[in-house]
Amino acid sequence: MTKEFFKVSDLKQVLEYAADFPTLDTETVPLTNAFERILGTDMVSDADLPGFSRATMDGYAVRAASTFGASEGNPAYLTVNGSVTMGESPGFSLGPGESARISTGGMLPKGSDSVVMIEHTEKLDDTTIEVYRSVAPGQHVVERGEDFRKADVIISQGQRLRPQEIGLLAAFGRNSVAVFKKPVIGIISTGDEVVSIEEMPGPGQIRDINTYTLSNLVREAGAEPVFFGIVRDHYDTLFERCAQGLAQADMLIISGGSSVGARDFTIEVLSALPESEILVHGISISPGKPTILAKVRDKAFWGLPGHVVSAMVVFSTVVRPFIEQISGLRNSRQFSVPALLSRNLSSAQGRVDYVRVRLIEKGGTLWAEPVLGKSGLINTMVKADGLISIGINTEGLDKGTEVQVTIL
Amino acid sequence: MTKEFFKVSDLKQVLEYAADFPTLDTETVPLTNAFERILGTDMVSDADLPGFSRATMDGYAVRAASTFGASEGNPAYLTVNGSVTMGESPGFSLGPGESARISTGGMLPKGSDSVVMIEHTEKLDDTTIEVYRSVAPGQHVVERGEDFRKADVIISQGQRLRPQEIGLLAAFGRNSVAVFKKPVIGIISTGDEVVSIEEMPGPGQIRDINTYTLSNLVREAGAEPVFFGIVRDHYDTLFERCAQGLAQADMLIISGGSSVGARDFTIEVLSALPESEILVHGISISPGKPTILAKVRDKAFWGLPGHVVSAMVVFSTVVRPFIEQISGLRNSRQFSVPALLSRNLSSAQGRVDYVRVRLIEKGGTLWAEPVLGKSGLINTMVKADGLISIGINTEGLDKGTEVQVTIL
Repeated sequence: MTKEFFKVSDLKQVLEYAADFPTLDTETVPLTNAFERILGTDMVSDADLPGFSRATMDGYAVRAASTFGASEGNPAYLTVNGSVTMGESPGFSLGPGESARISTGGMLPKGSDSVVMIEHTEKLDDTTIEVYRSVAPGQHVVERGEDFRKADVIISQGQRLRPQEIGLLAAFGRNSVAVFKKPVIGIISTGDEVVSIEEMPGPGQIRDINTYTLSNLVREAGAEPVFFGIVRDHYDTLFERCAQGLAQADMLIISGGSSVGARDFTIEVLSALPESEILVHGISISPGKPTILAKVRDKAFWGLPGHVVSAMVVFSTVVRPFIEQISGLRNSRQFSVPALLSRNLSSAQGRVDYVRVRLIEKGGTLWAEPVLGKSGLINTMVKADGLISIGINTEGLDKGTEVQVTIL
Repeated sequence: MTKEFFKVSDLKQVLEYAADFPTLDTETVPLTNAFERILGTDMVSDADLPGFSRATMDGYAVRAASTFGASEGNPAYLTVNGSVTMGESPGFSLGPGESARISTGGMLPKGSDSVVMIEHTEKLDDTTIEVYRSVAPGQHVVERGEDFRKADVIISQGQRLRPQEIGLLAAFGRNSVAVFKKPVIGIISTGDEVVSIEEMPGPGQIRDINTYTLSNLVREAGAEPVFFGIVRDHYDTLFERCAQGLAQADMLIISGGSSVGARDFTIEVLSALPESEILVHGISISPGKPTILAKVRDKAFWGLPGHVVSAMVVFSTVVRPFIEQISGLRNSRQFSVPALLSRNLSSAQGRVDYVRVRLIEKGGTLWAEPVLGKSGLINTMVKADGLISIGINTEGLDKGTEVQVTIL
């Protein structure tokens, strides 16, 4: 009878190993391809933004002081000295009692400090307006450098580039940008019963699911999956494929081999790989306990359980933070959604339990309804909107408890 | 003096127009490219999944009845008739008192209905085991068809394909899949003051930001942006570019022209386009009031404000649902994160106010801290984590109010 002689690690301990893996190098990409990439260096502004004071309303550029005290009953009378052409520097300046027609986005003439909205003026003739409201200096104006000043850090290294950060880089004319390389994650499926999806499974065979779920979880994490195929339970083939995967990829994920024998087999291959160290052999989470983490040179090598749900849960809770680490991501932003548990849930102490839930809104309240079922059943993941965790020291949760749902 | 004679629409009214725009056609893509695409038809299973009953543990396949009453003190003695080879149909069947060695994922021999975990057995000799615990029928087994039954709808039309749905399609051997075409969204920037990001802006000029923010918001919404460049305020050019955009794209977004004059200009072009109907001319939201929506034949044509924040807010709150509509998406899942407002906020009645917020965790509480600032300043979007809305009939929100934050 085979016995499992391995010490199971705490989730927290496992996550601490992430810091042992180095961040990848940077590369330069065109701005049009930089969306969702991770900024490789602090980005410093080389100019004020905007480079000139701009109107934010249609109206008349003025010195605010010329309008002080103006009201419907007691309008200010201003001379109109000209009109600001969009995209050009006005060729004139304004003094007290003077104004110039300006449109939103126009450059304020020298001597002006604010804009009176056109709705608060009346044109008397070609060179005179009445102003019915006073404005304060700076009103209806974005001042030079108000958005960013020259030499400001405008985006920090490690920030994932959202549409607004891409827009900001555009504003500074950065049509290419240094980002961290996308981690390349090698994926291997194992198991004598697993066939590729093009094949019709014979009796006792199933199609390879994990390659498809894991590779898209990899994409979702901002990395690039590379497939190393399905490997039968054969030592030389597995060893060779692992060595190849580690040479080509920045991280390797093997799934399958949930049986004790198959796991032993992965461990055997791992131990034979040069400069490998087994960091984790079992994690106190459920599903996902029989997870292996090794460090081979400076790369992470994961042995994930074969059950589709277990592999996905381990990926989301454990593997993903390691990918983010080598991606250079500094501000991982995974917000959870609070909901009330729709039924009592029991849980074993001594491990973190992950439970799939469906989110259901009833009368303005968001309920998390557990989707129970074996961890080999993909239907439970298809029905689920998210995951909740039940802490290591918790025996269970009562119906109505507020839980934090991580969206799947 | 120019006056604005247009009736502003409620946000709700505007969103109801989405249903007027037809869903795009479907196309077939390889499963490896189907991630995050939207399923074009209901997907029906053509077989049971799994196709045979499988062990979920390492141990011995048995008839559960052979183990009834077994305990440490009173073990059941079973004959070992053979061993199940992974990926093959066992060439034997089991009767009462019989068992077969099986690994996780192995096919149960005929006559067996459950698996005894190896930990609860002891091998006496090559053909006999002791069993220390009873199992129930079906225990440690995934039964044939337990995940999905033949002819089940396994994924519904309109579902966005997550990693688990891709995995499920793999399980059924679907290496290509019918999805709705990705909407192609044409993007035009206007304004005489706007220059491309490759150019060094002269006095009074600024670089085009909206093309970059909007195109990546389009990508985030699952659509494909196509650029039609920067158009100066010139009627013929704008008309021609709009006609070209509408011919090539499924939807057109023009940004800029926040000034009343420029907006009139867009309206003029719109009115001249054949079969066009202006549906919305102003929305009671802030920022974003001067938004135009027209229907040209069966395509949506948006005139968004030029201010970068306004354009992004209008996109996220109004344009995106229209893209989802033509994408065929049925279950738009945008969950919000609740937080407590960190300060009092005033708001005008009669419109929905969108306020950018930063999320800050302090002592286990998540606070939404408003990022105030003009809607022309992109720094406010870069600092923000999300948006909150203040309802049309609300005068303001007190510090400590729970708000729902939509993540940006």
